[in-house]
Amino acid sequence: MSGEDIREAPDASVITEAFWMWKKDQCDWSGREHLAERMNPLLKEVRHNPLLWLLVFVPVVFAAAKLKPEAHTLLFVLSVLAIVPLAALLSHATESVASKTGDSVGGLLNATLGNLTELVIAVTALRAGQYMLVKASVAGAIVTNTLFMLGASFFIGGLKYHIQEYNRVTARFQAGLLFLATVALLIPSAVSHADSAAEMAFTRKLSLGLSVLLIVAYGLGMVFSLKTHRELFASAESGEAGETPWPIGLALATLAGVTVLVALVSEVFIESVQEAAVAFGMTPAFVGFIVVALVGAAAEMASAFSGARKNRLDLSVGIALGSASQIALFVAPVLVLLSYVLGPVPMDLSFWPGAVVMMLIATMTASVVTNSGRSAWFAGVLLLMVYLIFAMTLYLLPPRAS
Amino acid sequence: MSGEDIREAPDASVITEAFWMWKKDQCDWSGREHLAERMNPLLKEVRHNPLLWLLVFVPVVFAAAKLKPEAHTLLFVLSVLAIVPLAALLSHATESVASKTGDSVGGLLNATLGNLTELVIAVTALRAGQYMLVKASVAGAIVTNTLFMLGASFFIGGLKYHIQEYNRVTARFQAGLLFLATVALLIPSAVSHADSAAEMAFTRKLSLGLSVLLIVAYGLGMVFSLKTHRELFASAESGEAGETPWPIGLALATLAGVTVLVALVSEVFIESVQEAAVAFGMTPAFVGFIVVALVGAAAEMASAFSGARKNRLDLSVGIALGSASQIALFVAPVLVLLSYVLGPVPMDLSFWPGAVVMMLIATMTASVVTNSGRSAWFAGVLLLMVYLIFAMTLYLLPPRAS
Amino acid sequence: MSGEDIREAPDASVITEAFWMWKKDQCDWSGREHLAERMNPLLKEVRHNPLLWLLVFVPVVFAAAKLKPEAHTLLFVLSVLAIVPLAALLSHATESVASKTGDSVGGLLNATLGNLTELVIAVTALRAGQYMLVKASVAGAIVTNTLFMLGASFFIGGLKYHIQEYNRVTARFQAGLLFLATVALLIPSAVSHADSAAEMAFTRKLSLGLSVLLIVAYGLGMVFSLKTHRELFASAESGEAGETPWPIGLALATLAGVTVLVALVSEVFIESVQEAAVAFGMTPAFVGFIVVALVGAAAEMASAFSGARKNRLDLSVGIALGSASQIALFVAPVLVLLSYVLGPVPMDLSFWPGAVVMMLIATMTASVVTNSGRSAWFAGVLLLMVYLIFAMTLYLLPPRAS
Repeated sequence: MSGEDIREAPDASVITEAFWMWKKDQCDWSGREHLAERMNPLLKEVRHNPLLWLLVFVPVVFAAAKLKPEAHTLLFVLSVLAIVPLAALLSHATESVASKTGDSVGGLLNATLGNLTELVIAVTALRAGQYMLVKASVAGAIVTNTLFMLGASFFIGGLKYHIQEYNRVTARFQAGLLFLATVALLIPSAVSHADSAAEMAFTRKLSLGLSVLLIVAYGLGMVFSLKTHRELFASAESGEAGETPWPIGLALATLAGVTVLVALVSEVFIESVQEAAVAFGMTPAFVGFIVVALVGAAAEMASAFSGARKNRLDLSVGIALGSASQIALFVAPVLVLLSYVLGPVPMDLSFWPGAVVMMLIATMTASVVTNSGRSAWFAGVLLLMVYLIFAMTLYLLPPRAS
Repeated sequence: MSGEDIREAPDASVITEAFWMWKKDQCDWSGREHLAERMNPLLKEVRHNPLLWLLVFVPVVFAAAKLKPEAHTLLFVLSVLAIVPLAALLSHATESVASKTGDSVGGLLNATLGNLTELVIAVTALRAGQYMLVKASVAGAIVTNTLFMLGASFFIGGLKYHIQEYNRVTARFQAGLLFLATVALLIPSAVSHADSAAEMAFTRKLSLGLSVLLIVAYGLGMVFSLKTHRELFASAESGEAGETPWPIGLALATLAGVTVLVALVSEVFIESVQEAAVAFGMTPAFVGFIVVALVGAAAEMASAFSGARKNRLDLSVGIALGSASQIALFVAPVLVLLSYVLGPVPMDLSFWPGAVVMMLIATMTASVVTNSGRSAWFAGVLLLMVYLIFAMTLYLLPPRAS
Repeated sequence: MSGEDIREAPDASVITEAFWMWKKDQCDWSGREHLAERMNPLLKEVRHNPLLWLLVFVPVVFAAAKLKPEAHTLLFVLSVLAIVPLAALLSHATESVASKTGDSVGGLLNATLGNLTELVIAVTALRAGQYMLVKASVAGAIVTNTLFMLGASFFIGGLKYHIQEYNRVTARFQAGLLFLATVALLIPSAVSHADSAAEMAFTRKLSLGLSVLLIVAYGLGMVFSLKTHRELFASAESGEAGETPWPIGLALATLAGVTVLVALVSEVFIESVQEAAVAFGMTPAFVGFIVVALVGAAAEMASAFSGARKNRLDLSVGIALGSASQIALFVAPVLVLLSYVLGPVPMDLSFWPGAVVMMLIATMTASVVTNSGRSAWFAGVLLLMVYLIFAMTLYLLPPRAS
């Protein structure tokens, strides 16, 4: 059986099985029935979970974007309503995969697909040369994942369980990667103020070099955590038995399809958010840092919070910190490299000093809080309070300084 | 018996008993004899401890302040001489209460009453609109408690015991609260330079919001450490059997009465310290940060050092870090809120950058040093050396930069 | 036998034995044969280790420096070629001493003698009034030791062993000392910008006071780690049995003699490096921070890497962090004091802000990475990546900003 194969050699057989499914559906005339049978758990899920009824907003938002492209506030609300159920679906699909491949691999998978949203948003902005928005969304995603997603996971889990334990090696490893990325983002602004032409050329060359370094470090980190020392990253405990997981094929297909839908809805969201923000009285800094980052990470948040509620905090920590380090060490450098191809001018890695301070504090806070491998609800409060301090500062900040 | 009640439900019965005592003294015609009998251990203590003979300076300083209000150097010396024995009395009273309620609750009680001094000093300065002095004394109190009080406790304890152990959960919890407060004090100056009117309005609104956040965090921290997870904050070991503790009623009465005396003497001290400092050749920055903070915390220091000598390092760590976090998360925000009622203009939370750096370094040092839950004399040396670096810097600092 | 004496009371007997050897060689007519017999293991080592054949470059570099003092690029290459084998010899000699005295004392000895090189270089520059070079080499040595030497040790050891353990108390102690020194170097630039005459006088007085504080802290640290709490600093595990160690007398004599040769060759190196750097297209900041520091620490690196390969990571951590803290708490303050005697004007402790940031990050990184007392190859990658970020930044930095 394929289930057994997967347990023995997951990486290869996952692909084999996906390919097989596709082959079968193509060749077999009775493919439709098979597909319907396979979709059964998905439809069941939709029927039992009222949240998923919001899926109706997905076609609505596309229709509205076509018919009334200038109704920004309406599109903003509709796109948020559409992203929420998609995020919930994504959560269940990821958990199904994770239940067959182990929490660490599942967490990595989740983080990879979850960050597609951020990547799509950023590439769209990159093409338009809106580098301020790209940088704000990168910095905001790092801060939101390490403080809000991790903090809320600890808080939600802590309300149900007195003390929760998780694998501190995973947390330390991810915090180490994040620290490295923060140093790389801190140094260009610490040694130089890009005012003269010579300094701007320096910052650009340095950013290119740092981007390559970060991608190499991220790759070596994958080798370390998934190959040479994977036994260190095993889950601390298995937690409650979850709902019956979907078959791996359906889970993978849902994961892929829903991610595409999330990306498409996100584009409508991004086009409308700036103008809607003005209507709601928010500053641009607050929109880029907080609103875009929160909605962009909605899918991963649903998974992380669900993991926390089921006492599978390893999944939550893996998603939150793994996603943050992936954005810092992979998405951001890739965007710098892509800017040489797609953008009007090359993008550098120098951030607004306030954003650097926030990323540095977020990394340090996450590192200190996760150091013990145990959490209670107050650990969540600490992380959320630091996030609230940042959000409040950005909300009140006079526009000029952003 | 009341003693047994207290062991079962300390919070309620302490108040009940205090009320009972008061009722009894009021109603009973033989109250005086009872009072004298109760005061017995206090008088015994005074007779046996030569330090307490300095109590004679308490009336002397009040008399001198009335008769010679302009003799600042004399008043300065007299007020320091009067605070020392009061601090010693406070120490014994707190230990008596702590011996009945557990070290953590005792430490909290001590920190609360000890910081009344700082609060009284700061409110006096607030009414006069001397916000620089208020901020310097707040920052100085945080730095002095985390570096000098904790460092000297480790050093004094380490001279007597080879290795001392304490509850690292308490230390981590308090360090986490302090870290949160430092972030709140750091952000306003990191993102804005309050030069224009728009930025000043921003800093003021932000300070108000941050103050509310910090008070909420402090309250949640109390709920966590005293209610939901109080078992984590139990003492690591009980140490030597101390002297016979006073009865709880006498201890509480002494605690309250002596605290009031300390506050009154502190006021004389504050009025005289600025002019006396000039006579001794000290800079205003040094006076606010070091001298006021050291004298203001004298009472708590006596308790913390006595705890260290008796191998009850949990008491010392609880007083030092608990007091620092209380000032940062409770006293400072309350002062901001009070400034709207008492001050000429609202006070904000933006500090002199040098003070922010010192608070940040003090918090990080305390966090790193207390991380292991074990201490030896050199841990004290490290903390004291960092304090000496700060003190030396402030002593030599040219007046303009403070 | 002397071997047994050493095991019982190492400090005293090492000196006694060295004195005895010297006495014997002086008084005994058959001293030469004894000496030859003693030198036997040294000659054997040279014959078996092809690396040591490079020793031939030692006389060559001295001859070239006499004959062609203006051929800077040639002298630069020759001096590097001469330092490498000397470093290898030093490594074996130190290990021989360490095998008799325990890794911690051996590590201290190594760090002390290894830093003679840095001291000689710095004193030469001090006499010429080249304070920028002195400061760059001090900051560079701290960064190179904590990031490159420690990182490469972890990486080299990790390629051979899956997980390596070491004494985390040693690492924490050294990281604590380094943190203290970083605070001392950070404060003068944090509170003042030495632009006016009053501020320059302040910085100078403060630097003098801080230097005395740091030397006192270093001395107390020695008392703590070698006297009162030496049992805490014992090695975590003994690792592989190394090669047969040399007799203690030969080892000590080699240690002393080779250190002098390293110092002499280093002087030729320093005279040539600036001009050779220009020929190779490097910036002055890169030369001072990276090239001088790497070559100056070559001797200690050989020992540290050899320790890592033999699973004696305690030796590596002791050399890397011990050497960094010795430079920060002993060499740098001694240079400030010496500048009052040898230099044209007193030197202060205020560094270029970029250098302060790098020292601070290096200290924090080493502290976080060594916190667990375990290492795998990726810990080395993290440290080396931070080092690469710094090296790349300095290499690209426009000359004006250095």
